[in-house]
Amino acid sequence: MTELETAPTQTALLDQVISDLEAGRQEELTATLLATHPAEVANLLESLPPEQRSELWDVVPVAQESEVLSFLHDEARTTIVDEMDEGELVAAAESMAPEDLAEFIDELPEDLTNALLISMDADHRKRLDSVLTFEEASAGRLMSTDVISVRKDVSIAVVLRWLRRHESLPPHTDSLMVIDDEGLYLGKLDVADVLTSNPETEVEAIMQPEAATVRDNLSEHDVAALFERRDLISVAVLDSAGKLLGRITIDDIVDVIREESDRALLRSAGLNDEEDMFAPVLPSARRRGVWLGINLITVFIAAWVIGRFEEALEQIVALAVLLPIVASMGGIAGSQTLTLTIRALALNQIANANVRWLLTKEVLVGAVNGMVWAVVVALVTYLWFGNIGIALIIGIALILNLLAAALSGIVIPLLLNRWGIDPALSGAVILTTVTDVIGFLSFLGLATLFLI
Amino acid sequence: MTELETAPTQTALLDQVISDLEAGRQEELTATLLATHPAEVANLLESLPPEQRSELWDVVPVAQESEVLSFLHDEARTTIVDEMDEGELVAAAESMAPEDLAEFIDELPEDLTNALLISMDADHRKRLDSVLTFEEASAGRLMSTDVISVRKDVSIAVVLRWLRRHESLPPHTDSLMVIDDEGLYLGKLDVADVLTSNPETEVEAIMQPEAATVRDNLSEHDVAALFERRDLISVAVLDSAGKLLGRITIDDIVDVIREESDRALLRSAGLNDEEDMFAPVLPSARRRGVWLGINLITVFIAAWVIGRFEEALEQIVALAVLLPIVASMGGIAGSQTLTLTIRALALNQIANANVRWLLTKEVLVGAVNGMVWAVVVALVTYLWFGNIGIALIIGIALILNLLAAALSGIVIPLLLNRWGIDPALSGAVILTTVTDVIGFLSFLGLATLFLI
Repeated sequence: MTELETAPTQTALLDQVISDLEAGRQEELTATLLATHPAEVANLLESLPPEQRSELWDVVPVAQESEVLSFLHDEARTTIVDEMDEGELVAAAESMAPEDLAEFIDELPEDLTNALLISMDADHRKRLDSVLTFEEASAGRLMSTDVISVRKDVSIAVVLRWLRRHESLPPHTDSLMVIDDEGLYLGKLDVADVLTSNPETEVEAIMQPEAATVRDNLSEHDVAALFERRDLISVAVLDSAGKLLGRITIDDIVDVIREESDRALLRSAGLNDEEDMFAPVLPSARRRGVWLGINLITVFIAAWVIGRFEEALEQIVALAVLLPIVASMGGIAGSQTLTLTIRALALNQIANANVRWLLTKEVLVGAVNGMVWAVVVALVTYLWFGNIGIALIIGIALILNLLAAALSGIVIPLLLNRWGIDPALSGAVILTTVTDVIGFLSFLGLATLFLI
Repeated sequence: MTELETAPTQTALLDQVISDLEAGRQEELTATLLATHPAEVANLLESLPPEQRSELWDVVPVAQESEVLSFLHDEARTTIVDEMDEGELVAAAESMAPEDLAEFIDELPEDLTNALLISMDADHRKRLDSVLTFEEASAGRLMSTDVISVRKDVSIAVVLRWLRRHESLPPHTDSLMVIDDEGLYLGKLDVADVLTSNPETEVEAIMQPEAATVRDNLSEHDVAALFERRDLISVAVLDSAGKLLGRITIDDIVDVIREESDRALLRSAGLNDEEDMFAPVLPSARRRGVWLGINLITVFIAAWVIGRFEEALEQIVALAVLLPIVASMGGIAGSQTLTLTIRALALNQIANANVRWLLTKEVLVGAVNGMVWAVVVALVTYLWFGNIGIALIIGIALILNLLAAALSGIVIPLLLNRWGIDPALSGAVILTTVTDVIGFLSFLGLATLFLI
């Protein structure tokens, strides 16, 4: 009978596998892996530290290797590929679909790629080459060429006979492609319509000439957006002349969507796209250190700004105590606007005609919250230090910084986007530098002008 | 012929629609909306400020209304529903599938819900009630009851005849469900196998009894994980007795995945799950103000810690200047670890058996980066202020704070997760409070001990 899946079993499985690995229970491990879906084996591998990862990989049945590899994320995959010998690699590569192999090869070190290309048989190499002619992350790279196409002037009965001559259909075949003698795409024929129509009907009568299609050079981001909006299972990929090249299926799109959201999350913390939580210490430290270094530069800029006001700080120590407040509130408010702007950009919701409305709105939101929280901060400051001047000045500085934060939260990502830089990666650092500097400058600057 | 889709056309379309709205060109707008897919109409509506949004909604053809509504996000939908009269609402509701209607009704204000339920016809209400018996965000809520089921002892020829009696198949029918006389689920029969098999074959011979299924009470997060791992198009939903209740299809799962990633991104900035970028100023300010208030409490805690060291700050003004550095570096390093931990939790990659390894690894990463950047910071500090004592102390404080950041980055999300609190929402605030406090405490504390 069927087994019901629940998530807790996954972590329980992980606990089980780790204890089997520690106790060296090879037979149990083999049995577990044979009963586990390759995608889940990949997830198990990714949940293990380097040594245990390679121990478990040794237990993966050879027949499963290529499928498990195709489910692994780039970074984890690299650590495993490093331990495979060339024979194993070639065997795994030859059982991959060309589009998976192309992605796989992209991530390999160059010497391995060359060795692989030389060892592969001519047929595989040719199919791989044709995939590699398309740009990375384009529709052409995502598509499979495994397509069933039919002519428009045949009957459904003929289509049914033709399908029955297949051993199996390509995965996720929800529709057949209708093409002419030159291979030009004419429309799609839903499998559901094949099943429900009278066998004498001609294909032309029930095919859908208006179905959505994509060009081979469309970015995978835009292909995914189309799938999402239209609830598609598959889409035809055409070249510039309208010739059918292949089809993209929803399973690859789900991966694109997941990778994009992963990337957005990881990049917002200055992490590598495919950061491996279980990578060894030194590579992890090196990768993350870069981001810490960038942050160090920005925080030294902020410190330098504070340093311009040593005199004020020497005379009124309360300024030093209150220093983080204005900067921190600006950073939080700014990152709210920034996050919304980045999301709206991804959804294509920002056009020239509504930017000004957005800017006005965000500045007003900043003004409202600035005033509300300025009153609170000023009150607490007054109660704490009993100094009305400092209380007033921190309130005004807060309002100024929240206005600056709102402006930066829109302008910075729009500019980065225009310059082709991913705002998810660098937007937050630039923004907090701005809010830190404006925060310190307005608070200490006003204090220097009015209190000293 | 088919039209090729590209993203730039979407923002161009938006610009066009806004300029038509501003010029009051009703006919052009009607023509544009008729030529636009309901999902894209929903996106256009979401890209408009409140007034223009309601103007455009007035142009949406009545026949499209219910579909456009089902594509809108909760918050934008609420603003539009507010403007519909009851008759319009009932008409829209009655043309929704029960599972879409259940989601729609969940988000309505209570008085409207009651009015709707009363005005609906009995059949619709009954189907809706059966969906509402399932918990929110569970498999039961996601599923459609529109399923084609067959018996195991009939031939494929019979199945084909039975299918041909349908006008159309339910959307995304990649497989039929095999059930027994009591409605118990026995397995699935792929449509592809129906098409490629000999018509005399019996269903039992080619059905897949081992196909993945889910229980009605499984969370939508876990259902989505299963779809992703197994590349599914649809999955059968069973009750506790193994009876077939319905099926979930990939289009709904794509929405779940998108909503989850959206939620993670928005929550990390303390934003509402369905925050509407084009909401009016006051509601936006109120929602975001809450998060600013929470941040204000944490930053006052940090300021209070600084206040304990007034004496040191009075004597050495350089301490005030350098104050942000230690706290900021800790915050960045901590949020890197935090982000990775939250992601690993979502992927079920953290179990009891690997937590200790992870903790050790992250602390070591913190130690390595702490030492590297401590040297840099100490050097810059020495060159800037010429004081070896301050330079040494800021270096040591930095190392201490990066160790604390690594520990917090793992422990905080794990604890929150165990307590059933989403670490994506509150993890970052708690973490930066810790790194701020430890940063100020270690830097100013060491300075007080050794320099004064």
